[in-house]
Amino acid sequence: MGTAENYEDILKGKYPAKAHAKKVAEWIVAKGGDKTGTIYLEAQKSRLLEDNDEPAPFRQRRFFFYLSGCNLPDSYLTYDMGSSKLTLFIPPIEPDEVIWSGLPMTVEEAKEKYDVDEVKTTQGVNSHLASPHASAQSTIYAIPEQISDDITFLSYKETNFDLLKPAIETCRVTKSPYEIALIRKANAISTVAHVNVMKAAPKAKNETDFEAVFIKSCLERNAKHQAYHSIVAAGENGATLHYVNNDAPITNQNLLLLDAGCEIDCYCSDITRTYPISGSFSEESLGIYKIVLEMQHQCIAALKAGVLWDDVHELAHKIAIEGLLKLGILKGSAEEILKSRTSVAFFPHGLGHYLGMDTHDTGGNPNYKDTDSMFRYLRVRGPLPAGSVITVEPGIYFCRFIIEPYLENPEQAKYIDKGVLEKYWSVGGVRIEDNILITDSGYENLTPTPKEVDEVVNIIKSG
Amino acid sequence: MGTAENYEDILKGKYPAKAHAKKVAEWIVAKGGDKTGTIYLEAQKSRLLEDNDEPAPFRQRRFFFYLSGCNLPDSYLTYDMGSSKLTLFIPPIEPDEVIWSGLPMTVEEAKEKYDVDEVKTTQGVNSHLASPHASAQSTIYAIPEQISDDITFLSYKETNFDLLKPAIETCRVTKSPYEIALIRKANAISTVAHVNVMKAAPKAKNETDFEAVFIKSCLERNAKHQAYHSIVAAGENGATLHYVNNDAPITNQNLLLLDAGCEIDCYCSDITRTYPISGSFSEESLGIYKIVLEMQHQCIAALKAGVLWDDVHELAHKIAIEGLLKLGILKGSAEEILKSRTSVAFFPHGLGHYLGMDTHDTGGNPNYKDTDSMFRYLRVRGPLPAGSVITVEPGIYFCRFIIEPYLENPEQAKYIDKGVLEKYWSVGGVRIEDNILITDSGYENLTPTPKEVDEVVNIIKSG
Repeated sequence: MGTAENYEDILKGKYPAKAHAKKVAEWIVAKGGDKTGTIYLEAQKSRLLEDNDEPAPFRQRRFFFYLSGCNLPDSYLTYDMGSSKLTLFIPPIEPDEVIWSGLPMTVEEAKEKYDVDEVKTTQGVNSHLASPHASAQSTIYAIPEQISDDITFLSYKETNFDLLKPAIETCRVTKSPYEIALIRKANAISTVAHVNVMKAAPKAKNETDFEAVFIKSCLERNAKHQAYHSIVAAGENGATLHYVNNDAPITNQNLLLLDAGCEIDCYCSDITRTYPISGSFSEESLGIYKIVLEMQHQCIAALKAGVLWDDVHELAHKIAIEGLLKLGILKGSAEEILKSRTSVAFFPHGLGHYLGMDTHDTGGNPNYKDTDSMFRYLRVRGPLPAGSVITVEPGIYFCRFIIEPYLENPEQAKYIDKGVLEKYWSVGGVRIEDNILITDSGYENLTPTPKEVDEVVNIIKSG
Repeated sequence: MGTAENYEDILKGKYPAKAHAKKVAEWIVAKGGDKTGTIYLEAQKSRLLEDNDEPAPFRQRRFFFYLSGCNLPDSYLTYDMGSSKLTLFIPPIEPDEVIWSGLPMTVEEAKEKYDVDEVKTTQGVNSHLASPHASAQSTIYAIPEQISDDITFLSYKETNFDLLKPAIETCRVTKSPYEIALIRKANAISTVAHVNVMKAAPKAKNETDFEAVFIKSCLERNAKHQAYHSIVAAGENGATLHYVNNDAPITNQNLLLLDAGCEIDCYCSDITRTYPISGSFSEESLGIYKIVLEMQHQCIAALKAGVLWDDVHELAHKIAIEGLLKLGILKGSAEEILKSRTSVAFFPHGLGHYLGMDTHDTGGNPNYKDTDSMFRYLRVRGPLPAGSVITVEPGIYFCRFIIEPYLENPEQAKYIDKGVLEKYWSVGGVRIEDNILITDSGYENLTPTPKEVDEVVNIIKSG
């Protein structure tokens, strides 16, 4: 799976498009698919902003990237499952465009760069699809909402629009060493950025200052895209789980919650750190921080291929309850508190999600209709396979909109000490999030970002 | 129109939505429209990224913003032309959403913030449209491709889908003092960012380093969006007009061309500076720089309400020809060179474009089918009205894809000295771009970014 030391070496090779295509084809065949079928995928289209002549932000289709490693818009691929031949179709040179934008990638350059058998230009897609391979007797696999109007599958005996999408979604769960190396690289760059933000923290005047340092640190390392919209939340803003404004002045808030990670070649990092802006924890902040850190340490230690994610999520709640009992915010029997789902008031979201080309990656089988409030928002259900990458991101929050209904329900309110709770609203929220690779023997933490209390405090004070 | 000193004061007031609505209504009436009609506009919809649960980047519809000043997604507005009543409809509070995202803007807050007569939530749009105002006898004006499926105009006597879009596009050309203040503010922030980049230039290792400093400087000042994708082009990359890679290592290139500007409340800045990365111009770079600076100075000096933009563009070519003759790159008669369109080889794009909510703002009436190569790409044709804001961005480029066809055409090649030209390829390109407000008596330059040779060199060397 590679190591933290050699990921750059792995990335000198090509993105393993053919291995991915083979894995997807095998999944289709295992589901009763046609061994001589053809897989067809399209890249995202380039388009303009509405009412504007500026290009819209481009984000490659993950299904296409998984079988090509190609980040060009307006491209296509076919994979002939019988002969294992992967063909990439890239946009041709448009002379008018060259004057403004310079030369695009040539067929020869694409052949050199990508792990494919053949590269053609996109004018050749339909004739390729109609060529006398085994098509007259075989099935074409495609994603129905991702087929251009001018594409024709007439020469195929059958079209199958059901299997390809779940095939890729499932295959993406377990990562190849190259994919893990990309996630490591994204983590390495995001870690530098997080540490730079910590160093700059005491001087920050506004949440935007933190965001500015984070993005600059990523851009300088050629990480042009963030994996998701950063959450930069000082003090009570940290209680808003999807806080996006990132523009409040820094006054006397104690904690900053920074949930931010860059993307490298379509692969994500997703890291949260929470720490005192001045370098000094308040008593309440430190109490909560230590609980969340313990939740994370114990949950990570419990990881191994085959472990039920639901169980790890429950373990996080048990540790949270233990900690909140010690602080006096909760009172009563730990077991009853768990059963009454009262800890959900403070830890309302799931423990984590798969991570890959999407921040919330495919294959988690969540059940957002679950009537059990503790599991409703858990984005991964069931056992974790070796090779999957999952975020472990426990948190404790003091959000009035979330906690107040618990205070109004006597069956839950009886476990909460309102007097003690009163002291904690200003903490806002604490979350600590790492990206963990699941292995047969246990796990590997892909996120080297500092998080122990002394480490973090020393970095902030060194800035 | 405000001044550079008091734009912050102007921005303490509200965005003049009602004045804009009145202006648009008057345009419609002047074109024979219905004085008792209703204007209907929709905000951009919030949506998710394809195959992903992350929100797509949001960009407000400019037509909606112009009549509301409101940057909320999923909103609507109506303007009753008879009573001059402007009504804004904002999304209601969704309890499930509050848990994750906190409280959205309330009706009362919106009433306080925006220059509108009434604020309702979006559930009230259809009943408002069906209410017994004069609708049974009047016309509803809307933009056909921007009407949600669930909206009904049945109560109106007539629907008109032709006038509203050109009405707003035309009204947007001449800016109100508030709009000019926003463009000033965007220019002020972008100027700090450009100066910070100049100071950092000698230490840059890669084009990304310049981009990182620019974006950080904007974010720190709460300018979260760039008006357009920056062009950060070192050396020969500056010859690619729409260079977007921004990732080449800095080795021994002399010049950096940085075309970048932030956006403030939907209003753009668009500024280009070109300067020596080390602080020292090469002889060739300085020669070209001085020509472009002279083109810009003279073209700006020629501006005044009523001036034909086509004439100013031609003036830029004349100065370019004069300068290139002096350097020996061109040879022969200035007049014949102009007539043969040979200077287009070095200055292939238009002199500038309107600037406002779009970087390439509405109302320019370009003619991209013009067979005259000198005017084909000119984005504004005709006289400039007072109150319009236009970019003045002359440039000289040494782009092989553009110049080579001229060298192969004897009627143009005879004016180009290939031997002298050979020394200039490494210059890449020089462009200098400011944002100019047209007034009755002349113009005002809204872009305070340094550009004189000594100023720029001193800033770079001070870094």
